[in-house]
Amino acid sequence: MRKVEHIGIAVKSLTDSVPLFEKLLNTPCYKTEAVESEKVTTAFFQTGETKIELVESSSPDGVIAKFIEKKGEGLHHIAFDVADIYAEMKRLQSEGFTLLNETPKKGADNKLVCFLHPKGTNGVLIELCQEQP
Amino acid sequence: MRKVEHIGIAVKSLTDSVPLFEKLLNTPCYKTEAVESEKVTTAFFQTGETKIELVESSSPDGVIAKFIEKKGEGLHHIAFDVADIYAEMKRLQSEGFTLLNETPKKGADNKLVCFLHPKGTNGVLIELCQEQP
Repeated sequence: MRKVEHIGIAVKSLTDSVPLFEKLLNTPCYKTEAVESEKVTTAFFQTGETKIELVESSSPDGVIAKFIEKKGEGLHHIAFDVADIYAEMKRLQSEGFTLLNETPKKGADNKLVCFLHPKGTNGVLIELCQEQP
Repeated sequence: MRKVEHIGIAVKSLTDSVPLFEKLLNTPCYKTEAVESEKVTTAFFQTGETKIELVESSSPDGVIAKFIEKKGEGLHHIAFDVADIYAEMKRLQSEGFTLLNETPKKGADNKLVCFLHPKGTNGVLIELCQEQP
């Protein structure tokens, strides 16, 4: 866990929320990206070494749509940058944490990612991510 | 908004959650601190330039106890480091954001802090904080 790579925030509409967060953070959104496999569209802002990632569902049955339906818009996950995602997954499993995917998958922003089950982390959805070469 | 200073996580018990997050983050908790005015006890971990702050209520009627009752344990707020909290509060008010305290107050970790109303920020509780000399 080298740093907080990004913080994910679930929003209903990027059209509404991108200008709002540009005002809030006083910095422009520098990229939007669709991640088809996750049924989301994402928008990124840089603050120091950490990104703020707004996440909009691209489908009514996507995980973000379901999250918003249940809990409303708001903080969704924290992603930590790791040097070696395979080693970190192995370490966390040996410490008793539950992985939501047993092998790393392709996430937004050219990353290999793995999520931990929030039931084992005080309700916080944790993502591990490793930059791909 | 120079960087993410810390991410606040509401927990029921620091006794349970500090060892859990030490395993998760693979780093020791380096400080605990009671903030009487907020009715909380906090525990800090460093990851890169950002801290993870676990927050336990020290009273059954505190805001963290109420948050957990309503939403369960989990992500509670994001705090951004600012150079001049008075200037940033003025800028955000002029952009239409609502401040939860009109003058900065003393927070954990020797900071001056101000919170923004989450209704104006997609449900995300935002804290501004400025290190005191």
